[in-house]
Amino acid sequence: MLDYKLLEALAAVIDQAGFERGARALGLTQSAVSQRIKLLEARLGQPVLVRTPRLGPTPLGRRLLNHVQQVRLLEHDLLDQIPALGESEQRLRIAINADSLATWWPTVTGSFCRERDLLLDMLVEDQEVALRRMRDGEVAGCICATPRPVQGARSHPLGSMRYRALASPDFVQRHIAKKGHAIPPLMPAETLRSMPAIVYGRDDRLQHRLLSTMGFDEPFPHHLCPSSEGFVRLALSGMGYGMIPEQQAAHLLASGELVDIAPNHALDVPLYWHHWRHGGSTLDKLTDHLLRECATVLRPMPEQETPRPGML
Amino acid sequence: MLDYKLLEALAAVIDQAGFERGARALGLTQSAVSQRIKLLEARLGQPVLVRTPRLGPTPLGRRLLNHVQQVRLLEHDLLDQIPALGESEQRLRIAINADSLATWWPTVTGSFCRERDLLLDMLVEDQEVALRRMRDGEVAGCICATPRPVQGARSHPLGSMRYRALASPDFVQRHIAKKGHAIPPLMPAETLRSMPAIVYGRDDRLQHRLLSTMGFDEPFPHHLCPSSEGFVRLALSGMGYGMIPEQQAAHLLASGELVDIAPNHALDVPLYWHHWRHGGSTLDKLTDHLLRECATVLRPMPEQETPRPGML
Repeated sequence: MLDYKLLEALAAVIDQAGFERGARALGLTQSAVSQRIKLLEARLGQPVLVRTPRLGPTPLGRRLLNHVQQVRLLEHDLLDQIPALGESEQRLRIAINADSLATWWPTVTGSFCRERDLLLDMLVEDQEVALRRMRDGEVAGCICATPRPVQGARSHPLGSMRYRALASPDFVQRHIAKKGHAIPPLMPAETLRSMPAIVYGRDDRLQHRLLSTMGFDEPFPHHLCPSSEGFVRLALSGMGYGMIPEQQAAHLLASGELVDIAPNHALDVPLYWHHWRHGGSTLDKLTDHLLRECATVLRPMPEQETPRPGML
Repeated sequence: MLDYKLLEALAAVIDQAGFERGARALGLTQSAVSQRIKLLEARLGQPVLVRTPRLGPTPLGRRLLNHVQQVRLLEHDLLDQIPALGESEQRLRIAINADSLATWWPTVTGSFCRERDLLLDMLVEDQEVALRRMRDGEVAGCICATPRPVQGARSHPLGSMRYRALASPDFVQRHIAKKGHAIPPLMPAETLRSMPAIVYGRDDRLQHRLLSTMGFDEPFPHHLCPSSEGFVRLALSGMGYGMIPEQQAAHLLASGELVDIAPNHALDVPLYWHHWRHGGSTLDKLTDHLLRECATVLRPMPEQETPRPGML
C-alpha cells in the first residue's frame, strides 16, 4: 500500500497553503513535514509540489491529493459502520458553473451538508475544464450542460435554467426605445450592432445565441465580466444587456429595476450532474438528493435537448 | 513598425474565440486570417496561438494582444482630436478582486463607461496574479489590497471595504448559542474548532485573520466557494459562517436573514487602484473618476494600513 503518512503531509501543506500551517494542522514540526514530502518525491522520482511563483501541487501532486480525498470519503463510509475508529473530515470536490453556484446550488445542498457535516470544495470552471477535471479524477462531481459522461463517471439530467435578455430601463431608453414607446419585437440590426452586451467570458455564447435567434450574426460590442453577481450589477448600472438566469433576477424584474428586452427569446440551458461511479455512499446519496430536489427548483429539460437513452 | 494587419488578425481570432468568427469580424476569409497568423508566427519564430486543448494565446501572443489594446487606447485619444480618422472600439482590461466587482465597482464605473462608450474586459484574479498581469502588461489597471505599484505603474489608495463575520440565525442556534441566548463576545475554542467556515479560495485569509484576532490559530473546517454571490448564499443556507462585505449584506442584516456573530471583530481591507503610467487619457480620466467616487462608496483607509508617502 501507499505510505499515507507522506500523502497526508502533502494534503496538509496544500490545504493549509504553507509548510508551517500544514505542520501545525498535523501536530508535527515543519522539518518533519518537509522530510515527508522530500521522501515522497524521492520515491516517485518526480516533484509533487511547485514552490514558485506560489506553492501548489504538480499534476502528479494533484492526482495524489485527489486520491487522498477519495480514500477519506471511503473512510467516512467505514466510520459510519465502525464509529470507534475515530473521526475523519468529509470533503467533496465539485466543479460547478458560476450561475448554478450563485442561484439554486446552495439552497439545494445546504440541508444535505448540514445533516452529514459534509464540507464542499467548489471550483467554478467552464464546461470543458470541468469535464477534464472529472476525467483526471480531480473532482468527484460536476454540474455542466453536457450530457455525455467521461469514462468512469455517470451523468443524470437535472433540469434546465431559463435565461432572459435583461437590461435596465435607462439602457432601454438610450439604445432601444424612447420613453413611453414599446420595445419592438424584432430589434433592427443597427440597434443590435451598437448596444453593448455583457458576456461572462470567452466561453459564454449565450448572448451570441440570443442574437443568432434574432437573425444577427455579426460581432457586437461587449463587456467581459466573469462574476455572476457582477454581471447582474453591470446590467443594473445600465452598462449593457445580458442573458441572466430568471431565478437570479426575479425580484429585479418584479421591481422594474430590470426589463426583459426580448421576451420571445428566452434560452433554456440544460444541466447535468456528473459523478464518479465508485465514489462512496455520500456521493451516491448526494446524487439522489440532487435528482429529487432539482425537480422542484429547476425547469424541465428543454424538449430538443433531452438526451437519447443510449447516451447516458 | 510592426505589421498591424497581422496583429489585428490575432486579436480578432482571440476576441471572437475562433478563426471563422474572427475572419467574419474583419470581413476576411478564414484562410486569409490563417495566413496572417502563420506569417506572424514565422516572423517571430514562435507560436502566438495554442490550438489545444482550446484556442488561446501563448504568453507571447498575450503580450501582442495587450500591445494591440494599448495602441487602440492611444488611437481612441487621437480620434477625439481628429474625428475624421474613423472609428475605433475602446476597451480597457482590468483585473479586480471578486468582492469589488460584486459590490461597488459596477455602480461607480457605470456612468463613466456609458458617457464614453467604453467597454470593460474584467478579470477576477487574486492579488498576486493581478499584479503579475500588471507587470506583464496584460491589464491596464487593477484593484487590489497591495499599495506598492509594479514598475511602470502608479497606485492610489481608494478606501477600504469592511468585512463582518456573518451567519444565518439557524447556524447560530446549531453552533453558537441556543435560541433566546446571546452570542458570547468570546466564543470558546471548541466552537471555533467545530463550526464550518466559508472560505473563498486558498488565498482568502480573512477567516483565518478573524479567528486569529480571537486567539484561535488552529485549522478549522471550511467549505471552499470561489463565488461572491455563492458565498453569501452558502451563509444564508446555514452551511457556514464567513467574512462578507458589509455593503453586500446590508439588506440581509436588516432583514435578520444574516447575523453578525463577532461584532467586535470586523476587518477593514484597504483597496488600491493600480494603473499604467502612460495608458492614455481614458485611463487617466478613469483614475480621477475612481478617486472621486470611491470617497463616497468606500470607508476611509484603515489607520494602520495607510501607506507611508514614500511607498507610492
